[in-house]
Amino acid sequence: MPIITLTTDFGEKDHFAGAIKGAIYSELSDVRIVDISHSVSPFNIAEAAYIIQNAYSSFPKGTIHVIGIDSEINPENKHIAVELDEHYFVCANNGIMSMIANEIAYTKLVEINIHDKIETSFPVLDVFVKVACHIARGGTLDVIGKTINNIKPIKNLVPYVNEEQTQIIGSIIYIDNYGNVVTNIKKSFFETLQKGRPYEVSARNYKFKKINTKYSDIVKFDTPEDKRNDEGRGLVVFNSSNYLEIAIYKSNNQSVGSASSLMGLGLRDTVTINFEKETVPNNF
Amino acid sequence: MPIITLTTDFGEKDHFAGAIKGAIYSELSDVRIVDISHSVSPFNIAEAAYIIQNAYSSFPKGTIHVIGIDSEINPENKHIAVELDEHYFVCANNGIMSMIANEIAYTKLVEINIHDKIETSFPVLDVFVKVACHIARGGTLDVIGKTINNIKPIKNLVPYVNEEQTQIIGSIIYIDNYGNVVTNIKKSFFETLQKGRPYEVSARNYKFKKINTKYSDIVKFDTPEDKRNDEGRGLVVFNSSNYLEIAIYKSNNQSVGSASSLMGLGLRDTVTINFEKETVPNNF
Amino acid sequence: MPIITLTTDFGEKDHFAGAIKGAIYSELSDVRIVDISHSVSPFNIAEAAYIIQNAYSSFPKGTIHVIGIDSEINPENKHIAVELDEHYFVCANNGIMSMIANEIAYTKLVEINIHDKIETSFPVLDVFVKVACHIARGGTLDVIGKTINNIKPIKNLVPYVNEEQTQIIGSIIYIDNYGNVVTNIKKSFFETLQKGRPYEVSARNYKFKKINTKYSDIVKFDTPEDKRNDEGRGLVVFNSSNYLEIAIYKSNNQSVGSASSLMGLGLRDTVTINFEKETVPNNF
Repeated sequence: MPIITLTTDFGEKDHFAGAIKGAIYSELSDVRIVDISHSVSPFNIAEAAYIIQNAYSSFPKGTIHVIGIDSEINPENKHIAVELDEHYFVCANNGIMSMIANEIAYTKLVEINIHDKIETSFPVLDVFVKVACHIARGGTLDVIGKTINNIKPIKNLVPYVNEEQTQIIGSIIYIDNYGNVVTNIKKSFFETLQKGRPYEVSARNYKFKKINTKYSDIVKFDTPEDKRNDEGRGLVVFNSSNYLEIAIYKSNNQSVGSASSLMGLGLRDTVTINFEKETVPNNF
Repeated sequence: MPIITLTTDFGEKDHFAGAIKGAIYSELSDVRIVDISHSVSPFNIAEAAYIIQNAYSSFPKGTIHVIGIDSEINPENKHIAVELDEHYFVCANNGIMSMIANEIAYTKLVEINIHDKIETSFPVLDVFVKVACHIARGGTLDVIGKTINNIKPIKNLVPYVNEEQTQIIGSIIYIDNYGNVVTNIKKSFFETLQKGRPYEVSARNYKFKKINTKYSDIVKFDTPEDKRNDEGRGLVVFNSSNYLEIAIYKSNNQSVGSASSLMGLGLRDTVTINFEKETVPNNF
Repeated sequence: MPIITLTTDFGEKDHFAGAIKGAIYSELSDVRIVDISHSVSPFNIAEAAYIIQNAYSSFPKGTIHVIGIDSEINPENKHIAVELDEHYFVCANNGIMSMIANEIAYTKLVEINIHDKIETSFPVLDVFVKVACHIARGGTLDVIGKTINNIKPIKNLVPYVNEEQTQIIGSIIYIDNYGNVVTNIKKSFFETLQKGRPYEVSARNYKFKKINTKYSDIVKFDTPEDKRNDEGRGLVVFNSSNYLEIAIYKSNNQSVGSASSLMGLGLRDTVTINFEKETVPNNF
């Protein structure tokens, strides 16, 4: 049974997501629809790019991912269908695909051209559903679009590195449900530059000398529970998507606070990593 | 496989929606359950009426729609099952069905009477699930209720028109996830009255001379991008449900603001359309 | 087709829940995934325990419930799989199972030990999915863990009763989508102690002499509608999960207010029931 996933900024309340699902089931009786997220911040391309990048690859090969953010067609915003990593993506060419496409080359990219008779303010329903169902029935991308050659980029995808390679200047690209702040510094990127040197991660006036592998690595389990003071302590971790993240252990925006609220860290804020200079071996 | 949709004010957190789904799967192993919305504002009949009207028709014929808002049975709030447009609806007779039934006549309407032995504070679980599964198994409405003749109306469903037919006085019935405000003025209603006359749409002290077909119609794509100032500009559009809507291009309640927040427009506020008087052709 | 339910604190926006679903469908093509809730307050064990207790039993026997709250493994937080009431639960042993296990004895309890090669900050994806799919394929718990004997308790599960049995001191354990406050006083517990005596329920300075069976029991339907003043009136009810609940008729946190907002009742606040002393029959 083909799988179609949905990632949109429709929110949890409106009828839009329900209408989409109804339209898909009306076209295909034997399909599985899976919500990835309908709570992307309205028109937030970077958020959507992060979410779809980190969700898509756990689905089976052949899954079709419909992404409905800023999808109204206009002279500067065309609709595309992409085949990449044996998955299919149907969305606007507005930067949403740039995070995935920056790491894995697409195998097929078309600009959708079935719009001749479709003038719509709800393109996810009127266009993307048709394209997704076409693919689910085994149709090829050539039938619904013409091959193009560029996926629109988004800014600040990759952190800046200074010439001496002693500093990475990254930025915050996502704030998750726990208020943890995710940077654009990937583990592999960091390790390539680090080369075993000691480092210091800085965000505002907070500094960290260690990157943990789990959130609870900060807890001293051999100290009696009532003498620890773990909750509310900041830490740095490579998260499950391998991005460098500044977190608070057991954070909660509504109660104890979070990295975002307690450290005052917001989207696009800078996070810096400084490497110590390699000491010249004293061989003379 | 039969489809049962769910539209409720249970919210995203509580166990209610999960319990409903479990109960349906316990009655029917071969059924598809689709969430339309669980985030209707508590007890907000008008919101629920708008959402179900705009979602139901994209589902296949024969779909069963369970609507769980203000559904506790009492002397003034009876449970009904409705067949309309080849869809089935199970809900309280509290106005939720009035928007749909105002446009399309029902083919069958019964007041549910299987309650003899059911005293419950969770009627969606204890009554609506049973009725929906009965219908899904091919059962008729006559078995679970007695035919009645009226669907309870809600107020302000249709806008007011003055005697000279120079003015439509509508009101805001829904505010969507983008903060766009939706009025009760439908496109067909407007066009019947307009008869080609110029018009002006007013809401508070905002005035618009044009109704767009898409949100991005307001953007001047031939002006360089850095000289435009599109985001945050107000516009009027017939939305994808064909209701007149006042919107902000790329609005976001949390950041740039929205029609609701920037223009101070709320539920039940008035939106007026004035038509210019038809000028008498000067033929003498 | 096996059913796997999901109850987590991942929220509605992040990619976590989507990634989980993709991973399950990648392991099992023929499975039904049902969201119970992803909006549990972050790390709130008591909330999760209440939600899963009240949702699980409406699902068919054999359903597998994955609960992803505070699930990072560490010396004080082990992963368990539980068979209880012919349902399966996969979660951390952090108190989440204590409400269910307090009422129904488990038939099998194992500490999961498939972690030898899994170091992860996303255990729901990397461990719980594997265990759930193993059970869904008919696998036994012995294969994925070793039998243990204790489910970690949580505090304040059961209300306090004074020696004379004239007073129940309960506390608020959950606040629902309507702002109704749910206490830890169950109907059966109350009835065992009451023995027909009159009682008074107190919360702060609010007092109630009656426990209703439905929310609308407070409405006087024989009084004309415009003379009633029902909305906004407080009441006590045994809710659909049989917990004593203080509610406002047709409450809404965003508009008319709720029991939580209007009476100032929050989590862990005290709710007391005083019974009148049994009068000694005057037989001499």
